[in-house]
Amino acid sequence: MTHTRWDTLFTHATLATFVGAEPYGLIRDGALAVKDGRIAWVSPHADLPHNASAAQVIDVGGAVMTPGLIDCHTHLVFGGNRAHEFDLRLNGASYEAIARSGGGIVSTVAATRHASEDELLAQSMGRAQALLRDGVTTIEIKSGYGLDLATERRMLRVARRIGEELGVTTRATFLGLHALPPEYKEQRDAYVALVCDEMLPALAAEGLIDAVDAFCESIGFTHGETQRVFERARALRLPVKLHAEQLSDLDGAALVAQYGGLSADHLEYLSDHGIDAMARAGTVAVLLPGAFYALRETKLPPIANLRHRSVPMAVATDCNPGTSPLLSLRMAAGMACTLFRLTPEEALRGITTHAARALGLDDRGTLALGQRADLAVWNVQQPAELCYWIAGDLLRAVYVEGKAHPLAT
Amino acid sequence: MTHTRWDTLFTHATLATFVGAEPYGLIRDGALAVKDGRIAWVSPHADLPHNASAAQVIDVGGAVMTPGLIDCHTHLVFGGNRAHEFDLRLNGASYEAIARSGGGIVSTVAATRHASEDELLAQSMGRAQALLRDGVTTIEIKSGYGLDLATERRMLRVARRIGEELGVTTRATFLGLHALPPEYKEQRDAYVALVCDEMLPALAAEGLIDAVDAFCESIGFTHGETQRVFERARALRLPVKLHAEQLSDLDGAALVAQYGGLSADHLEYLSDHGIDAMARAGTVAVLLPGAFYALRETKLPPIANLRHRSVPMAVATDCNPGTSPLLSLRMAAGMACTLFRLTPEEALRGITTHAARALGLDDRGTLALGQRADLAVWNVQQPAELCYWIAGDLLRAVYVEGKAHPLAT
Ligand SMILES: [Zn+2]
Ligand SMILES: [Zn+2]
Repeated sequence: MTHTRWDTLFTHATLATFVGAEPYGLIRDGALAVKDGRIAWVSPHADLPHNASAAQVIDVGGAVMTPGLIDCHTHLVFGGNRAHEFDLRLNGASYEAIARSGGGIVSTVAATRHASEDELLAQSMGRAQALLRDGVTTIEIKSGYGLDLATERRMLRVARRIGEELGVTTRATFLGLHALPPEYKEQRDAYVALVCDEMLPALAAEGLIDAVDAFCESIGFTHGETQRVFERARALRLPVKLHAEQLSDLDGAALVAQYGGLSADHLEYLSDHGIDAMARAGTVAVLLPGAFYALRETKLPPIANLRHRSVPMAVATDCNPGTSPLLSLRMAAGMACTLFRLTPEEALRGITTHAARALGLDDRGTLALGQRADLAVWNVQQPAELCYWIAGDLLRAVYVEGKAHPLAT
Repeated sequence: MTHTRWDTLFTHATLATFVGAEPYGLIRDGALAVKDGRIAWVSPHADLPHNASAAQVIDVGGAVMTPGLIDCHTHLVFGGNRAHEFDLRLNGASYEAIARSGGGIVSTVAATRHASEDELLAQSMGRAQALLRDGVTTIEIKSGYGLDLATERRMLRVARRIGEELGVTTRATFLGLHALPPEYKEQRDAYVALVCDEMLPALAAEGLIDAVDAFCESIGFTHGETQRVFERARALRLPVKLHAEQLSDLDGAALVAQYGGLSADHLEYLSDHGIDAMARAGTVAVLLPGAFYALRETKLPPIANLRHRSVPMAVATDCNPGTSPLLSLRMAAGMACTLFRLTPEEALRGITTHAARALGLDDRGTLALGQRADLAVWNVQQPAELCYWIAGDLLRAVYVEGKAHPLAT
């Protein structure tokens, strides 16, 4: 073997590679090397070549290393927050009273429209940092609190800027069909046309869109309206994903699968027909236990059937101001275990390997040769502890393309 | 007014004082001064004396300040952890299979007995640090994984050492009646006698015990056995508290109230009779939503009746390896809102004012003149946000007796 001098070599690591048949793809006493921002070696320590050398050797002393975590479903760019509404509701205010006092998504839309790009960035950055400090190195961020061209553009631009300024990867998803804006209350059709015929093409032309999403729900948009935006996305060669079957079964999962969609998300009311369509299309099931928890939902997504049909399951925070103000992806994984009965291994694959797939990214999410060296080192000895401990700070360090991230180290 | 030069003056603070009738005892644009480790001034900024001066002025820019949080019920000193058992269970192993393979509390007792004092300290310190980094400056820690004199002593000593080495307050609670140790399986009575007649007097004489607790439950100890240890505690002038009515109603709350107990904890199955006894005795109800969550309990503690009878409600992590591996007291407060429907104000009083009372401490838990200057500064603008945001890292800084804590700043 030709000798290569690596940039960094991690030794004595408990590597959760998520590759191979071993639970967690575990390599105990593992060695992992980085060269030019990519994983250049991964094996048991005993198999290291004798002439191996690296500019920097980091002995992690048995600590668990995972791929940098991937949060594949967030709405973390928004103005204001809804803590006051949370307070009112727990003090007995009805949803109607809160809506009358300007609460609900309308208040977030108003605050987001009101914020300049820099203000929006400043307000959202703390949330992205919180995710990073819990091991996340790739974050999907949706628009959908603007509901007009200028504000949707601002949100997508902020999503991009968070990636640049924080030194992590962000993926921007256009969610024009998130809610009907107040000024279109009596003109559903005109709003859907605006999204499909103006916003989406314009923002796509500006290179601001990595994927297209919609909220297909009785209180959101219909199957037919969703199909209109998917048709337009297809014409623009943009991948699609969908908020589907959260509160009722509108057969959205089958629809997004029919478009070869990356993912169907939420899925509490998913039918066998939907599972079947997802299995055939290879569409990822993104589970969002934070919303389930915050809404005190009792209807569980059909985990056993998803597992049986080998539909890949991802787990995400759904970080948003209304139904899931969740700032930790590891906590989402823990909730997926405790509330949805995923195994810790399934939950951890759900925030790494399968989350990458839900974003259409094939260069991350496992510890395998050639993958990006986005890495998280944890102050635990077994991977299951990442789901077992509830909240708290278990992160020791994060590496992005092999470089220690100063905000998470 | 005589002029005093303060050590530190915090300005532009949103002070959640928990004093007075205002929600959260809120003072917007508040000023708080510290002198000799105590709160020497607290008022709206406008009311600051003109000749006020301080060696150090810290403008917190509108951030919320609360008393340092108080975790009044933990079992955070233990050997090992039970992540493997968590994993097995989610992979379908039965409780019997886990018990047969040495799982359950027995495995924690074995690991704790096996650990030296320094090992136990090293293993437990990370958990105490996690709590501190989430704003906690006072931590109650129970024994109860030793179940023999030497190990119970070691646990209590480690509880004290955590306080000294971490620079926070710890309170040590003797929980000899936590479980029947394996070697006393057929000799309940002999074990209760050992606890009451040997362990408790010996450890009390060594100054290691601040309060006495028991696990009064069908799978724990009976009403009569609990009474035996309470009698002995009374003779030693030690205050009592009790794990009561978690899985069934053994009338434990009334028993601990009858002994003027500091608190009754868990309380899912608490009866009106128990509430009545607690209200008359001034016994605090300590709610432990982490265990409720982790056990997927569905029976809610009788919050409305506790509120109606003005029983003070505290909230704690119950941090323990089996039923609540929870490392954030703020998360416990959030769970108390979401799962138990406490208002954010009740939940925050529960981790400050009422938690102090559950420990018999009257020098902390509010931002009032003369109280210890144990303070937490948060990266939020409204107190309700501390319960609204799920997990994540919201802490800006912690002060213990007025001094910035290096591990949480
Ligand atoms: Zn969503
Ligand atoms: Zn307990």
